[in-house]
Amino acid sequence: MSPSSSLALIVENDLYRQDWRLTSRFGILHYTICKWILVFLVGFWTGVVSLLINVAVENIAGTRFLATVDLMASNRIAMAFAVYAGSNIVLVLLSALLCIYVAPEAAGSGVPEVEAYLNGVDCSSALSFNTFFVKVVGIVGALSSGLMCGKAGPLVHMAACIAVFFGQPGFTHRLLGFTKLDLLDNDKNRQDLVACGAAAGLAAAFRAPIGGVLFALEEAASWWRSALLWRTFFTTAVVSYVLRIGIHWCRHGHCGSYGKGGLILFDVGDARVNYGLLELVPVAILGVIGGTLGSLYFFKFFLLAPTYACLFGCRKGVFAKLFHAALVAFITSICSFGLPWLAPCRQCPPNNEECPTHGRVGNYKAFNCPPGHYNDLAGLIFNTTEDAIRNLFSLGTPFEYNYITLLIFTASSYMLALMTYGILVPSGLFVPAILCGATYGRLAGMVMVSIFGHDRLDESMYAIIGAASFLGGSMRMTVSLCVVILELTNNLSMLPLVMFVLLISKVVGDCFNNGIFKLHIDIKGFDFLKEAPPPFRSQLTARDAILTPPVTLYREEKIGRILDVLSACSYNAFPVLDREPDGKDRFFGMVLRAHIHVLLEMRSANSPKKIAVKTVRKHPAAQRSLSGNCLEVESLLDLTPVVNQSPYTVLETLSLAKTYSLFRQLALRHLCVLSKNKEGSPVVGVLTRHDFMQSSLWKKHPQLGRLSSFRILE
Amino acid sequence: MSPSSSLALIVENDLYRQDWRLTSRFGILHYTICKWILVFLVGFWTGVVSLLINVAVENIAGTRFLATVDLMASNRIAMAFAVYAGSNIVLVLLSALLCIYVAPEAAGSGVPEVEAYLNGVDCSSALSFNTFFVKVVGIVGALSSGLMCGKAGPLVHMAACIAVFFGQPGFTHRLLGFTKLDLLDNDKNRQDLVACGAAAGLAAAFRAPIGGVLFALEEAASWWRSALLWRTFFTTAVVSYVLRIGIHWCRHGHCGSYGKGGLILFDVGDARVNYGLLELVPVAILGVIGGTLGSLYFFKFFLLAPTYACLFGCRKGVFAKLFHAALVAFITSICSFGLPWLAPCRQCPPNNEECPTHGRVGNYKAFNCPPGHYNDLAGLIFNTTEDAIRNLFSLGTPFEYNYITLLIFTASSYMLALMTYGILVPSGLFVPAILCGATYGRLAGMVMVSIFGHDRLDESMYAIIGAASFLGGSMRMTVSLCVVILELTNNLSMLPLVMFVLLISKVVGDCFNNGIFKLHIDIKGFDFLKEAPPPFRSQLTARDAILTPPVTLYREEKIGRILDVLSACSYNAFPVLDREPDGKDRFFGMVLRAHIHVLLEMRSANSPKKIAVKTVRKHPAAQRSLSGNCLEVESLLDLTPVVNQSPYTVLETLSLAKTYSLFRQLALRHLCVLSKNKEGSPVVGVLTRHDFMQSSLWKKHPQLGRLSSFRILE
Repeated sequence: MSPSSSLALIVENDLYRQDWRLTSRFGILHYTICKWILVFLVGFWTGVVSLLINVAVENIAGTRFLATVDLMASNRIAMAFAVYAGSNIVLVLLSALLCIYVAPEAAGSGVPEVEAYLNGVDCSSALSFNTFFVKVVGIVGALSSGLMCGKAGPLVHMAACIAVFFGQPGFTHRLLGFTKLDLLDNDKNRQDLVACGAAAGLAAAFRAPIGGVLFALEEAASWWRSALLWRTFFTTAVVSYVLRIGIHWCRHGHCGSYGKGGLILFDVGDARVNYGLLELVPVAILGVIGGTLGSLYFFKFFLLAPTYACLFGCRKGVFAKLFHAALVAFITSICSFGLPWLAPCRQCPPNNEECPTHGRVGNYKAFNCPPGHYNDLAGLIFNTTEDAIRNLFSLGTPFEYNYITLLIFTASSYMLALMTYGILVPSGLFVPAILCGATYGRLAGMVMVSIFGHDRLDESMYAIIGAASFLGGSMRMTVSLCVVILELTNNLSMLPLVMFVLLISKVVGDCFNNGIFKLHIDIKGFDFLKEAPPPFRSQLTARDAILTPPVTLYREEKIGRILDVLSACSYNAFPVLDREPDGKDRFFGMVLRAHIHVLLEMRSANSPKKIAVKTVRKHPAAQRSLSGNCLEVESLLDLTPVVNQSPYTVLETLSLAKTYSLFRQLALRHLCVLSKNKEGSPVVGVLTRHDFMQSSLWKKHPQLGRLSSFRILE
Repeated sequence: MSPSSSLALIVENDLYRQDWRLTSRFGILHYTICKWILVFLVGFWTGVVSLLINVAVENIAGTRFLATVDLMASNRIAMAFAVYAGSNIVLVLLSALLCIYVAPEAAGSGVPEVEAYLNGVDCSSALSFNTFFVKVVGIVGALSSGLMCGKAGPLVHMAACIAVFFGQPGFTHRLLGFTKLDLLDNDKNRQDLVACGAAAGLAAAFRAPIGGVLFALEEAASWWRSALLWRTFFTTAVVSYVLRIGIHWCRHGHCGSYGKGGLILFDVGDARVNYGLLELVPVAILGVIGGTLGSLYFFKFFLLAPTYACLFGCRKGVFAKLFHAALVAFITSICSFGLPWLAPCRQCPPNNEECPTHGRVGNYKAFNCPPGHYNDLAGLIFNTTEDAIRNLFSLGTPFEYNYITLLIFTASSYMLALMTYGILVPSGLFVPAILCGATYGRLAGMVMVSIFGHDRLDESMYAIIGAASFLGGSMRMTVSLCVVILELTNNLSMLPLVMFVLLISKVVGDCFNNGIFKLHIDIKGFDFLKEAPPPFRSQLTARDAILTPPVTLYREEKIGRILDVLSACSYNAFPVLDREPDGKDRFFGMVLRAHIHVLLEMRSANSPKKIAVKTVRKHPAAQRSLSGNCLEVESLLDLTPVVNQSPYTVLETLSLAKTYSLFRQLALRHLCVLSKNKEGSPVVGVLTRHDFMQSSLWKKHPQLGRLSSFRILE
């Protein structure tokens, strides 16, 4: 939100102006302190929640893996599989049940919802406390069951829920004692807090504070200003301290299986990075592959959708959804338990005491192999996603993997990721993308090392480049991904190569479609205001976008008519006219439905001050039905105190492109279009976000269809 | 620039719309390719120029230092000082002469000018080719003379000059063959290119591609959008490849003294970073010191200004300026050559073969000391700034410095930096800030190490924190500084501490004043549109900001009146009215002075197409005087083809805060204020950027003065 857009959301009626003048210096200091406390709380709780999720996942997954491995060691393979697959299905079903019955919005990654909210779409149910609860429990189930999904997207969603929770009126008013004005309790502040939440979520997932800020900036937020940069920075700093303290505490064994590793997730800072022009060729190829697979990642999901619909869509009941979730869990179990049996046992590298391992971690998993041997595929697929990535990125393990192993794992992880994203459990997209990319990257690295020898770039460096290419190809971010990868791997020398591969994969991906989050926003049908209007909008004017004539009120209106208008029209804002002495109408301002409601309810108790406070609080009650008694319907109500006399307006002849820019840049909800003619009504209509959507415009101007593909590549 | 603001700069007259419809798909592809070629060229040349500057500085400075050291070795101390100080003064005078006679705008850092340009202030002379040339030669002189200044700010300025050069019409038209529309050749594209330039400049100075992008985003640019993020990212990537290739080539001895070091300037990636809650105390103290000194950095400059004025201001001639420059150079020479004699010679650490060194580089400089001893102050002050920072950051050199040495150096570098920034040579602020900060940081580190021993944080890590604190305290950036420091030092583990110190120093600094670049913008008197309007503006309306009644034209206007208006008024835009059949005036649109000029010149040759192309090109000719012959003055000219029929307008009752937001967010140059009354002229006035300045508003509403200090802390 820019400061200006924030202003746009502030209704400048008489009561607001009066309130503002009464605000003291102390009030403003109090306001500032409250704002920073809220931001701190968002960062703090995001860090804590992320730690708790980590601890839960590591412990549950650890128990499952150890039980399975123990049964295998005593040669009870079938029993081992039953335990493994059974626990898998139970965990996934638990998540799915919660999603279905408590909060369907908790399924999937949640980033599109957060982006839509930050764009001004009203989707607050997707950020409710229920959603938060389901998301937390659901992601623990999904992750510890070994599904091919990540926690970055869900953490962004959770942090946004936390932000909405702290931003709600009840909290700011009761706990912080802040009752002045609607300074804190307005849409602008909630959006700012949610942006901080988005940054905190990603920062917590990847332990990447700067990456989180840049994610919020580049992908999540639709508006930006430097004050917000500064506040998100503070939030992610808080997150990183919480994580640091938590990890430090867990290292002393307080958290069960969780506790290894520092603040850097996949530290390869020690790698020697020695490359020349030669390496640019495989890097460019990886970029092209990443761009292609990344955009297909989503496209294939569409191809699979009809198959799903055919299989489970006929009876769109709860049972079908649960069965679907269970099926995907079962397939995942089969892949992760079954596929390693296909891989041959390989001899351990000499003098490596960590080979083979039987526990949860380690590069060289014994699985079904005799002593002195390890199963390379098991180290990747019979593992949590995070550990698999760590193994792929690990240094000093040349030729750990077989070509075939990596090919199998690329294919299976890609397919599993595709399947998993369709089921009703919380699941993120970042980690599967990193995993897929790292696998084919490592494959390319093996080829390069086997041709050009060991004195050039390490295999695992190619894995990083591969991960970058897939991320770039699917998400189309640039700076934030660069920084996230830098913070994940702690290797600055790789930066030029990572930048290069991101440039290529983004360009390749952009040839096919939009980034994956933007595509999801389209599918979910949010009225999302994109940054650039399609160019044909410069051939239409503001008037052309208006579908219906406006419903106007007079400054002094009969209560009967007001009640009629409110019950018959679903609009949230009405233009208000003023009748001049010569009988002509003049534009006076805009009034919100909710504010009329308050005025009607308060019409006996005539304290304007009380109204001012109430106006803010009343949004939820706005849909309540109203009734006037018979005596009143003919009496006049003066709307002046609640009319925003200073709304943004445009002339009907303004080009639609410019109108869109104004609407988008200033984050408006309603825009009044004024007539240029001096005769007739001064108001031509009211534009809302929906009027700017492609579909609404096409409905009115079908001839524009053929122009839609006409766009400027940025 | 946001896409919308870009639209705001596009004059949607009939000719433009016609041009746009005629544009083919190929035209748009051509446009896109041209745009990327321009961006590439900006990155490429910024990289090349930065390399050339480095090579020149290292060679000139190297020669000077070696000559001085050789003379000292043969015990001709006076001669050594003469050579040292003489070469110093000659180099500085060369820079100053160029600045005074060729391009005064080249003096100082140049970042304020770039920020003003990106805010829409017309300061193109500050980004001309002359300025570029002087800046390049001047910074070589200033840096190799050993003045306490850096090259980051100047490089940002140079890169912006390069961007303006490539963005000018001549280049895009003649060299790239792009003649369609004013798609490429408009203010929006030039601003975008300059933003890329700003990113490239910082990226080149610190070899920090991501830091450069974030600098452009956080500090330099006033508007932002993701397409620009992506383009700056590409630019800085190009810069980093050019630098990498150049450094690689220089390493084989092709560049004289220049050639050591890799892409990371001050690599301390190997440092063990081991800290706990204990370390937060000194870090917080450093933050407070940094915030205080950083804001005083500027404040003291003001205190010194009267002294300067007294000394040299009486005769504000060329001679005084040159004398001032020479004096500062001489004082610098005295400090750097004289102060080390005060420091006692210290014994070299055992088994260190690099101690003492006699050449340009190395931590342990012999200077005046006998074999086996070194002069610690000489290693800092008798050195280029970059090497001094490298020494302060160097690992594994515990107790290299004396407390007194560091105290002396902190004070002298602070004072020298203050003095240097006042003289008329190109000089940056980043490097002196890093140097000052690193010195007192290292001092704090020595204290900590001597109390708590060596197993905790290294001395040099405190130097990094100190540098961060001073940068944060003076520039008030957050994310970009974090990333720059990360890219400079290659130590991710330090990130939480760096974030912490930046948070504190920014808060402390904000209590005193604004960031240093913003303060400079104020001093230079640019009409800079800040992000947030002072809150009292919500008590005024758009009408209240209008100082003079508008000068309007009719759609069909007598040539005589047009000529009168153009010669009598200096306005650049005029509202155009349309007289309706009933005799009333209706608002028709806005027309630019430059476009009227073109129309007048072309009134015989009546090809609208030709006009369309010409309109764009004519801006420089706009001030040319026009004359009509006697026969014409009564004939009518139809302005319709050049009238922008779709300008942004506001109603006179819109609050000034909202008007400001609209003006700022959409990057307007003129905003037409319309009357609400149906009688009288429909236009109340035209607002320009100047009307929103504090001073203009005070002039009209002196009673607002007392409200000015009333602001919300973000």
